[in-house]
Amino acid sequence: MSGKRSEIMDKLTSLAKQRGFIFQSSEIYGGLGSTWDYGHLGVELKRNIKNRWWRDIVTARQDVVGMDAAILMHPKVWEASGHVEKFHDLMVANRNNKKRYRLDHLLEAQETDVVSGLHEAVLGTALEGEADTHAITAIVDGIVMDDKGLDLNQFGILADGKKADWTVPRQFNLMFKTFIGPTDEETNRAYLRPETAQGIFVNFLNVQAAARAKLPFGIAQMGKAFRNEITTGNFIFRTREFEQMEMEFFVRPEKTAEWLEYWSNARLEWYQSLGVRPDKLRLRPHGKDELAHYSSACYDVEYEFPFGWSELEGIADRGTYDLDQHQAYSGKKITYFDTQANQHIVPAVVEASAGVDRTILTVLSDAYHEEQVKGETRVVLRLNPVLAPITVAVFPLVNKEGMPELARRLVDDLQGDFAAFYDAGGSIGRRYRRQDEAGTPFGLTIDGQTLEDQTVTIRDRDTMEQERVSIDQVKACLREKLAL
Amino acid sequence: MSGKRSEIMDKLTSLAKQRGFIFQSSEIYGGLGSTWDYGHLGVELKRNIKNRWWRDIVTARQDVVGMDAAILMHPKVWEASGHVEKFHDLMVANRNNKKRYRLDHLLEAQETDVVSGLHEAVLGTALEGEADTHAITAIVDGIVMDDKGLDLNQFGILADGKKADWTVPRQFNLMFKTFIGPTDEETNRAYLRPETAQGIFVNFLNVQAAARAKLPFGIAQMGKAFRNEITTGNFIFRTREFEQMEMEFFVRPEKTAEWLEYWSNARLEWYQSLGVRPDKLRLRPHGKDELAHYSSACYDVEYEFPFGWSELEGIADRGTYDLDQHQAYSGKKITYFDTQANQHIVPAVVEASAGVDRTILTVLSDAYHEEQVKGETRVVLRLNPVLAPITVAVFPLVNKEGMPELARRLVDDLQGDFAAFYDAGGSIGRRYRRQDEAGTPFGLTIDGQTLEDQTVTIRDRDTMEQERVSIDQVKACLREKLAL
Repeated sequence: MSGKRSEIMDKLTSLAKQRGFIFQSSEIYGGLGSTWDYGHLGVELKRNIKNRWWRDIVTARQDVVGMDAAILMHPKVWEASGHVEKFHDLMVANRNNKKRYRLDHLLEAQETDVVSGLHEAVLGTALEGEADTHAITAIVDGIVMDDKGLDLNQFGILADGKKADWTVPRQFNLMFKTFIGPTDEETNRAYLRPETAQGIFVNFLNVQAAARAKLPFGIAQMGKAFRNEITTGNFIFRTREFEQMEMEFFVRPEKTAEWLEYWSNARLEWYQSLGVRPDKLRLRPHGKDELAHYSSACYDVEYEFPFGWSELEGIADRGTYDLDQHQAYSGKKITYFDTQANQHIVPAVVEASAGVDRTILTVLSDAYHEEQVKGETRVVLRLNPVLAPITVAVFPLVNKEGMPELARRLVDDLQGDFAAFYDAGGSIGRRYRRQDEAGTPFGLTIDGQTLEDQTVTIRDRDTMEQERVSIDQVKACLREKLAL
Repeated sequence: MSGKRSEIMDKLTSLAKQRGFIFQSSEIYGGLGSTWDYGHLGVELKRNIKNRWWRDIVTARQDVVGMDAAILMHPKVWEASGHVEKFHDLMVANRNNKKRYRLDHLLEAQETDVVSGLHEAVLGTALEGEADTHAITAIVDGIVMDDKGLDLNQFGILADGKKADWTVPRQFNLMFKTFIGPTDEETNRAYLRPETAQGIFVNFLNVQAAARAKLPFGIAQMGKAFRNEITTGNFIFRTREFEQMEMEFFVRPEKTAEWLEYWSNARLEWYQSLGVRPDKLRLRPHGKDELAHYSSACYDVEYEFPFGWSELEGIADRGTYDLDQHQAYSGKKITYFDTQANQHIVPAVVEASAGVDRTILTVLSDAYHEEQVKGETRVVLRLNPVLAPITVAVFPLVNKEGMPELARRLVDDLQGDFAAFYDAGGSIGRRYRRQDEAGTPFGLTIDGQTLEDQTVTIRDRDTMEQERVSIDQVKACLREKLAL
């Protein structure tokens, strides 16, 4: 990550704290690694994003229903899903500095000839082309398959630019473990779910029957998931605890390609509908070597973060893998009676798996702007007004002459329809700047003229232009600007 | 619990599964003890309740802001809060049947003279009055204080009505443990939060500063919490994973009594505003011997569940306990500059702590009705229309003559404003019954007359009465009935 890019992330992290979007978790105790808490503005931004997803994916559609499974599930679920056996990262430790590294992340930071040497040792051929994610994934998979305890010290792999003394790479399961019941016995073991998707698959029969759903149909859920990642970072991009918005769309197996196309495009458009700049968004098909074990085709919605293009959402053809596995492991028949074919079938699945926190980071990164105004730097969050935590701030110009009372009455009146906020603290200029940094699209100022003619100024966050409107027209004016 | 009462809980559990409110978690694997998943109707009921709480506690008020902390927190948080040292249950095992019991729950099922004997052995005096919760709490606390390894076998305590061979009671911490990072070392230990409240206290400084909040003000959050309970049960009443809605209201210490009164009444009224029958709700002050270690006064909002009066929400004066503790353990100054007194003070806290799942159980229990209609039993969920997962169901009387198309168009038209649902499956009578069981307050039927005069029938769930309205008046009619 270049200096400039990392500087933007630092500024965003600092602004997010200052304005009450996101704080480091347990900060007074020195923080808990890569865990973040949402403050009074952050929680509203999160709610707006989640509610919009739920509306667009579930309630506005007739072919998707919601559900909400518990985080703790039967441990057999994770045997069936493949997570117990396959959900590993390959990890190495450097004896010199006592630090642990995820091998793939470590290799991303090496010179090409280092990666090429390792490629040859593991896969038998020198690197063709770039030392990119695909090549590195192939190396890591090769080491896992080989499973012989490779000595990495012959390849010149550096640790943070310094010579290292590497341990043999070993696999590390990413699921958080816990124990249900009074003793830490193996029979009481449980996991914190590493994805919400399995909660949908194990409930397929119950939901389909209760909702009387017919193919094609989707089941959606939002909720926390946990991965005990070795390498985390980039603010809220990769954290151990995170929130998912997942939708599993069940289709006749021959229809998967068609629905994969449909959902890939629909999901790309969804991020555009949040106001994210289209040139910062793209749909990238996965190469064969990148596909997860259950998937035969996959698209990523990617966003160009300050640290580069990265995955925002995955849309995957999971085939019948998950339902097949749960049939095999539970011994229960998990099928759907297809009235067209007059037979029981196992539906195939197209999954759209998004991250709440990544969407928030996207929206914040995309909205962050600095500009020069009268020789000073103005920081403004150009959030889509429908996502902004505060829609309209109301300011009494001065704290006298009845202006505060009038402003409070206006806030009370607006509150039921809009997220309204009263601010009387400091000069009007400072109050405007605070709301610019909070992403508040509209500011109403009660001034001397208000007392005379019952008009207020309405200020636009992006243009900073102001116009006067009559108080009784304020709601209509806001509705028009919000296109409600 | 009497047979009749337990029968109602069984019926409710069965209806909840059938209609898609609540399923046993991981059911295809035999279930995971006392863990439940919400189905397509359950998740909407939950969303409606949570959104209403958020609106009433956070967005409609100018003196409360929200936040959303991570479930994983720094382990020091739980030392400071007292949970590592004090959050225990006293547990005994019966060697005869290999079952474990929470001692207080076990004692509740014993004859009075058995409890009295134990009372005398532990506290030095025979029981005065009933073997009620207070007396049992006193015994359990006495055993914990004594900590000598009491032999229970001399008191005639039965296990499920049978003679038992008891182990010495021992304390069992209720926090779920996990490990962050690659090794299960003590230094990597973390806990799943047993309450959301501490997430508010450790973020007090950050939220107060970012929101520029002035006393008195509240910070609210909703989220999952986990307690490794020995004894769970009564459907979703006591589960190991549950969701809280907590609000901590920070006040000048001399104002706590006043605000405790205010919030106790406000919270009781909130449940009434959900449509819960007032005679099934009550506010019960805690006796001195019932208070938690941090609390000097507390009220419970209780509901009369089919299994008896039980706690729905606790409103507690926590004083300055939590902020004091976090100051002491973090070494950070956690104070508020009181401009009135012109000094730094540690604010006191009045907490309102509610359970999402218990509220759902309350709403479902309260709404469940059986009545005789034409010699058949009609089951109807009399949910408050603003909480019902489906507001209006639309039925084509028959699947021909353009009725299905007309019904679908009506659903599409209603969808943006109301939770509308199309149902064409089975006889109209069966469809009415299904929606009665789902708690859907209104049903619109497209029939032969609709094709002639563009009117539909609107059926009321509770009275089963029908009236005809013109299609273009349907929205206005629903708005009026919902008092929107």
